[in-house]
Amino acid sequence: MSKPVFITRRERFNAAHKLYNEKWTEAKNLEIFGKCANPNWHGHNYDLYVTVQGEVDPETGYCMDLRFLSDLIEEKVIEKTDHKNLNLDVDFMRGKMASTENLAIAIWEQLEAGIAAKGCRLHCIRLEETENNFVEYYGAS
Amino acid sequence: MSKPVFITRRERFNAAHKLYNEKWTEAKNLEIFGKCANPNWHGHNYDLYVTVQGEVDPETGYCMDLRFLSDLIEEKVIEKTDHKNLNLDVDFMRGKMASTENLAIAIWEQLEAGIAAKGCRLHCIRLEETENNFVEYYGAS
Amino acid sequence: MSKPVFITRRERFNAAHKLYNEKWTEAKNLEIFGKCANPNWHGHNYDLYVTVQGEVDPETGYCMDLRFLSDLIEEKVIEKTDHKNLNLDVDFMRGKMASTENLAIAIWEQLEAGIAAKGCRLHCIRLEETENNFVEYYGAS
Amino acid sequence: MSKPVFITRRERFNAAHKLYNEKWTEAKNLEIFGKCANPNWHGHNYDLYVTVQGEVDPETGYCMDLRFLSDLIEEKVIEKTDHKNLNLDVDFMRGKMASTENLAIAIWEQLEAGIAAKGCRLHCIRLEETENNFVEYYGAS
Amino acid sequence: MSKPVFITRRERFNAAHKLYNEKWTEAKNLEIFGKCANPNWHGHNYDLYVTVQGEVDPETGYCMDLRFLSDLIEEKVIEKTDHKNLNLDVDFMRGKMASTENLAIAIWEQLEAGIAAKGCRLHCIRLEETENNFVEYYGAS
Amino acid sequence: MSKPVFITRRERFNAAHKLYNEKWTEAKNLEIFGKCANPNWHGHNYDLYVTVQGEVDPETGYCMDLRFLSDLIEEKVIEKTDHKNLNLDVDFMRGKMASTENLAIAIWEQLEAGIAAKGCRLHCIRLEETENNFVEYYGAS
Repeated sequence: MSKPVFITRRERFNAAHKLYNEKWTEAKNLEIFGKCANPNWHGHNYDLYVTVQGEVDPETGYCMDLRFLSDLIEEKVIEKTDHKNLNLDVDFMRGKMASTENLAIAIWEQLEAGIAAKGCRLHCIRLEETENNFVEYYGAS
Repeated sequence: MSKPVFITRRERFNAAHKLYNEKWTEAKNLEIFGKCANPNWHGHNYDLYVTVQGEVDPETGYCMDLRFLSDLIEEKVIEKTDHKNLNLDVDFMRGKMASTENLAIAIWEQLEAGIAAKGCRLHCIRLEETENNFVEYYGAS
Repeated sequence: MSKPVFITRRERFNAAHKLYNEKWTEAKNLEIFGKCANPNWHGHNYDLYVTVQGEVDPETGYCMDLRFLSDLIEEKVIEKTDHKNLNLDVDFMRGKMASTENLAIAIWEQLEAGIAAKGCRLHCIRLEETENNFVEYYGAS
Repeated sequence: MSKPVFITRRERFNAAHKLYNEKWTEAKNLEIFGKCANPNWHGHNYDLYVTVQGEVDPETGYCMDLRFLSDLIEEKVIEKTDHKNLNLDVDFMRGKMASTENLAIAIWEQLEAGIAAKGCRLHCIRLEETENNFVEYYGAS
Repeated sequence: MSKPVFITRRERFNAAHKLYNEKWTEAKNLEIFGKCANPNWHGHNYDLYVTVQGEVDPETGYCMDLRFLSDLIEEKVIEKTDHKNLNLDVDFMRGKMASTENLAIAIWEQLEAGIAAKGCRLHCIRLEETENNFVEYYGAS
Repeated sequence: MSKPVFITRRERFNAAHKLYNEKWTEAKNLEIFGKCANPNWHGHNYDLYVTVQGEVDPETGYCMDLRFLSDLIEEKVIEKTDHKNLNLDVDFMRGKMASTENLAIAIWEQLEAGIAAKGCRLHCIRLEETENNFVEYYGAS
């Protein structure tokens, strides 16, 4: 009998971004994105919750060592996004709209292999942009 | 390959209510509902989380424009419940016990069609009555 | 040398109320109080923080036993306000507008003597009506 | 047509624990568990969220009376863990590593039958150890 | 006898900024400000708490109408900072380092007169940059 | 004209403790401290807020570099308390009851000189033991 558990680690980063489609006029950008299209940027405190599924190791009581998970998120996501500009500075966001949706999907792709290498499975990326708005992504289907 | 994302918008309303079944005696109401049956009402700050599932539009990076979702919730739920009495003032609660469970289901029914009209799918209503008590509803099955 | 410390206990209550001045017309009440004047009431989850100043007893390490403070708040405030109507049910609010300001002052008057009887001093009543609005009262001057 | 709802009750407990495998050397315990292996213990404020699935009773508007659920959690979990040592004092943790994962599974086993006896189904145990780390368990599969 | 009360209104804004002294070399900016000096900006969700002192009007139960206070903050602060770049877009920050300290002082100066015009007194500006860092300012002395 | 600002840094630690006066019988300890006297310890997640008063440096916009303040708290408090037993492991608590009051005063004494050495003044230690209980200390008077 299997007893799958889900463990979650929260990490945080602070970044600038704007929502702006270069193929559109400035007027259309303002119409679609409103104040999010401000050419001089704005920014957020992002709360990132990474949830991993696995079985409990009876020797440690752990599903996955949270120090490993924290270090992996630090290396693959936080170092690249914290105190950065999501449109200009982040290699894994190049060529994409810097929306919370796209950022959550891209973070999934940054983390999936490193978690699988430890015998666990990435279950969910939850990315909170403000206390009122957040995105969850459970992988492609 | 499909990449479904879930976006959530939080809105808030403050309302009065009581739990009271008119078919029962006052004694039975007190026995079943305790202090929630106070005939002079009590009230809560409700936190409402509306989660929508959809695909990301590559032109906008959006699953659904959160301003649209916020406006829809405002029109269909908040204007009707904020600073109101859930038992007396709310058309979509008429004839129902004003419990958090029934309120979550009724809010789902208020929002489902408007979200579907935009090509997305309502995924979850989460309604928090206090920091210790909340209800989630994922639709009829 | 004196080392005064301030200890705070949080308690919560859920209540209905309205802001309505009986001496005014309904139109004036609506103009001044807006949706808070809804005759059918609305309500809130109130967070109450009671702060007490005192010296630390070297035998116990306590300024005041928080179980005593919690019991005092329960008896003098929570039993009278929780799941109640602030305008109709609460003896210590009789004849007053049921605003957060007046409620904070009245709670101070409910608690001051019981705290002084233990050799401490009531320092502050902080009453949060919503996550965006709160009142603090430090006593008459 | 069925309308399943999920209700959640939060309860809290404060406990001491350590992560220490008696079969290992102290050096290996320190290597695997780091500061969590401190022989003199450390501790946490645990936030426990118990989610139950059921249908709404039209007479009460309730899925399950939250006073019943709160009392059940109090009796089966909180009385046994609050202000206790998870390694030494808790009968249902005997012989297990005192990790959040194992604690969440053990709490599930403490609560499952009592909830089933009321015609509902235990859906999820969510156990938060810090604001950055938490575990969810949905039962064996 | 006077019974002064303190009421607080929270408002929020999301902005980009950097900490960069134009008189210094880039190396010195990096040394002093670290990652906060990133030339491509970063950003935050700012939580602003404005506390006002006044007496309670017996006719209304209000110290100050919170709708007035909210509108004043909106006009004088939020419209100028929300979804803006604090270094480039905000008239009242021109020529100042865009630190939380300077921003709190500047917000005080934006609001003081409008509050005094209503017969109350601005007591405190509290500006939270992250969950770990915040500034309070009580005026010049 | 002076414009004093107050900046606050939050840090966290998780520790075990008990409230137990060795000069008393076990019965008296239980009577006075209740479940806090459990001989096998319990524990908490402590939230520590350190508030410093100073003037803003016009070159940096800073009152005090928060990296310095964070490092100071880490060295003087967190390294000594995190994942420790407050009664057994912490040199600056030796011979004192391990209450939140005493811990707040002792943390003040750990930090005061290091902050003064930078030309600022320690203003307040706020130590939260649970979401319902916290202590503030503003120094001896």
